[in-house]
Amino acid sequence: MPDYKAPVRDIQFVVNEVLESEKVYQSLPGYEEATEDLMNAIIDEGARFAENVLAPLNRVGDEEGCQWNPECVTTPEGYKEAYAQYVDNGWPALSAAPEYGGQGMPTLMGIIMSELAGTADWAWVMYPGLSHGAVDTVAEHGDAEQKAKYLTKLVSGEWTGTMCLTESQCGSDLGLLRTKAEPQADGSYAITGTKIFISAGEHDMADNIVHIVLARLPDAPAGTKGISLFIVPRCNVNDDGSVGERNAVNCASIEKKMGIHGNATCVLNFDGARGFLIGEPNRGLNAMFTFMNTARIGTAVQGLAHAELSFQGALTYAKDRLAMRSLTGPKNPDGPADPIIVHPDVRRMLLTQKAFAEGSRAFLYFLAQQGDIVAKGSEEDAKVADDLMALLTPIGKAFVTEVGFESANLGVQVYGGHGFIREWGMEQIVRDARIAMLYEGTTGIQALDLSLIHI
Amino acid sequence: MPDYKAPVRDIQFVVNEVLESEKVYQSLPGYEEATEDLMNAIIDEGARFAENVLAPLNRVGDEEGCQWNPECVTTPEGYKEAYAQYVDNGWPALSAAPEYGGQGMPTLMGIIMSELAGTADWAWVMYPGLSHGAVDTVAEHGDAEQKAKYLTKLVSGEWTGTMCLTESQCGSDLGLLRTKAEPQADGSYAITGTKIFISAGEHDMADNIVHIVLARLPDAPAGTKGISLFIVPRCNVNDDGSVGERNAVNCASIEKKMGIHGNATCVLNFDGARGFLIGEPNRGLNAMFTFMNTARIGTAVQGLAHAELSFQGALTYAKDRLAMRSLTGPKNPDGPADPIIVHPDVRRMLLTQKAFAEGSRAFLYFLAQQGDIVAKGSEEDAKVADDLMALLTPIGKAFVTEVGFESANLGVQVYGGHGFIREWGMEQIVRDARIAMLYEGTTGIQALDLSLIHI
Repeated sequence: MPDYKAPVRDIQFVVNEVLESEKVYQSLPGYEEATEDLMNAIIDEGARFAENVLAPLNRVGDEEGCQWNPECVTTPEGYKEAYAQYVDNGWPALSAAPEYGGQGMPTLMGIIMSELAGTADWAWVMYPGLSHGAVDTVAEHGDAEQKAKYLTKLVSGEWTGTMCLTESQCGSDLGLLRTKAEPQADGSYAITGTKIFISAGEHDMADNIVHIVLARLPDAPAGTKGISLFIVPRCNVNDDGSVGERNAVNCASIEKKMGIHGNATCVLNFDGARGFLIGEPNRGLNAMFTFMNTARIGTAVQGLAHAELSFQGALTYAKDRLAMRSLTGPKNPDGPADPIIVHPDVRRMLLTQKAFAEGSRAFLYFLAQQGDIVAKGSEEDAKVADDLMALLTPIGKAFVTEVGFESANLGVQVYGGHGFIREWGMEQIVRDARIAMLYEGTTGIQALDLSLIHI
Repeated sequence: MPDYKAPVRDIQFVVNEVLESEKVYQSLPGYEEATEDLMNAIIDEGARFAENVLAPLNRVGDEEGCQWNPECVTTPEGYKEAYAQYVDNGWPALSAAPEYGGQGMPTLMGIIMSELAGTADWAWVMYPGLSHGAVDTVAEHGDAEQKAKYLTKLVSGEWTGTMCLTESQCGSDLGLLRTKAEPQADGSYAITGTKIFISAGEHDMADNIVHIVLARLPDAPAGTKGISLFIVPRCNVNDDGSVGERNAVNCASIEKKMGIHGNATCVLNFDGARGFLIGEPNRGLNAMFTFMNTARIGTAVQGLAHAELSFQGALTYAKDRLAMRSLTGPKNPDGPADPIIVHPDVRRMLLTQKAFAEGSRAFLYFLAQQGDIVAKGSEEDAKVADDLMALLTPIGKAFVTEVGFESANLGVQVYGGHGFIREWGMEQIVRDARIAMLYEGTTGIQALDLSLIHI
């Protein structure tokens, strides 16, 4: 695997010089603490964690993958310990709301930490990353009891969350989903059905997992207007907040995948599992759309992460590998040949990667900042930012994940035949990057969303 | 893995209608037997072999890979048996010269068989495929004794061949190679050095392997003008043609790769191995350039093969998978949704794949036919064909392998998240296709060759 050196200066350049973040956040009530000094300090700390704790796990995660057993899924060696340290350091709470124990930093800071950690090891960062959807759902649409019961533990990272949408017959077309929710006498629901492709759906890193599950009530209309949202904890939660007995949700298997081997992609069987309705019946999809843009920016970060990592690996190799002479005369006259970085085609590839990484970073940070304006800005500013996000988010998700994959491929190309060999780590980046154009809405679905906002 | 159905009609359309091959070959002395009927019959037989014998091995080869041990490399289950059947059926001799036991068919027919077999299982077809370089080298530049000793066995497929060019410090820049050849009293040479990335460098499928090795004589000039070619058999060959003792060439290890797991990519140690000079001293690279264009067309076929295979898999899935309704009204009104082939973006992807596959096929068959004109045409025709090949071969190799990879990616995209899961076989095509843009000259090296012919 290429050594990951967090591009701290590049990140701070976008945050401070390009986006003038201190000025922006000083004007947003609730984000006054986000000064340049504090944001820089967070970036420095996040960089250290990513380089020292996570980067060494990236190759291990790919080689070892996850192991399924009937009780649990074992994550690759070192994943659990890294997660414990991440929780101890308070990272899961970085941009969460203070009322649930969050540090109240802007979403932008969460996106930056996701870039840092995800460039170091994307398969790992998906475990804490998936919790955001669960936190947002419960915070936005849950009742007081649900918030009290689940949010503090999710925000602290003691528990993680998942989003259980996909079934084998439906992915993009959620109207086809079949999982059922039967009302019970005590006000809970019995959830029955099978969900697939549940990232971080089962693992050994946290005490409990809070599944947010899309299912149909018995009287629900067909199609997307009949979908409701439920909280289904892996283990039931006692009234005092402690973790109780296992719920009737089990991981039937984990997928063998092209990449992100370190992340468990689970088939989850819900067999009359105890669940709790969130928000209005039959309004589940509407509830989810409220934070879909944020989730898509989070996924787009994967493209940025892999563009950056592949660029770093390719740059190091291009300075080191000797082949042929520069067209303008030897640049390494004492050596047997010049480093390949002197060749125009290699420079073209490296500069393309660099442009993709730096451009994607500026684009996604801008979107994250717009999201913060939507959340805390004046009504007028929020409206403008929201419209801008509706237009730009599908472009950002589609474009950044596509160029992230292209960059990963260019990185392999710079290595020549060595790029195809596993030990260099460059081909892993291609395999890991490939999923980003598929999940959280394929590139084609992003295109559809983009065209629909104009209708 | 998608089921492979050989596109016999598409192939015969290019051969007969587009390229009017019978007419062309009737005018080329030595190819008179290549009638439309015979060529069609060969294509039909090749299709059957590819579909029935090879296609079932493609997934096995990927999952199982090759196993190294100090004596040999074990190929995936079924590879050896398929190779024995391939030899029994006479396929290795298809387009080889009759004087060495070949069937004398045009190179075009060899390219077609390579497409059929390679679409069914590219990792497998590389074992017989690598022999062509060895055959061409010995036929073109070997002496009478060398031809007698090696060619019949290589042509029949009893033995296979390799091309040993790359060393760890040199790939594209062969001027840097270090392997040494010391003249011995008996006229042979002691070859010492380490070669890497030797495809099919060691395996259990044939009785002997004939390595063609690039090395330097003691008094050789530096750079590319000091490279000579040697035959180094894995096992020495007795005067009666039988296989004798092991030569001092050993497979030190095999690479773990992104794809083509079924093919053994070997590190070969030559430790004073007995070798025999082919052609003129220090003229090795010139000798190899005489058939470089043919070799590149052979590699370009991989792009065609993977474009076709991924298209077939994606087309089947797009007709089967139900999601959402057609924009022009339901096309499957009795079902819960329409098959995704009705959606414009899915059609775009499928038609792109189809265009890549069919266009690449016509392009490469045309080039192969031009190669046959170079070999057997009038001096004037041969000159024109040769110039055309010099111009078009680097374009063909670069373009077809790039679009083959793009097509493989589109195939994954049509499957959505399922494309990322190993059991569907679509991601394997991406991993297998990736190498084609790297070996036999990267895309950048093809570009360099293309621009240099104009200088």
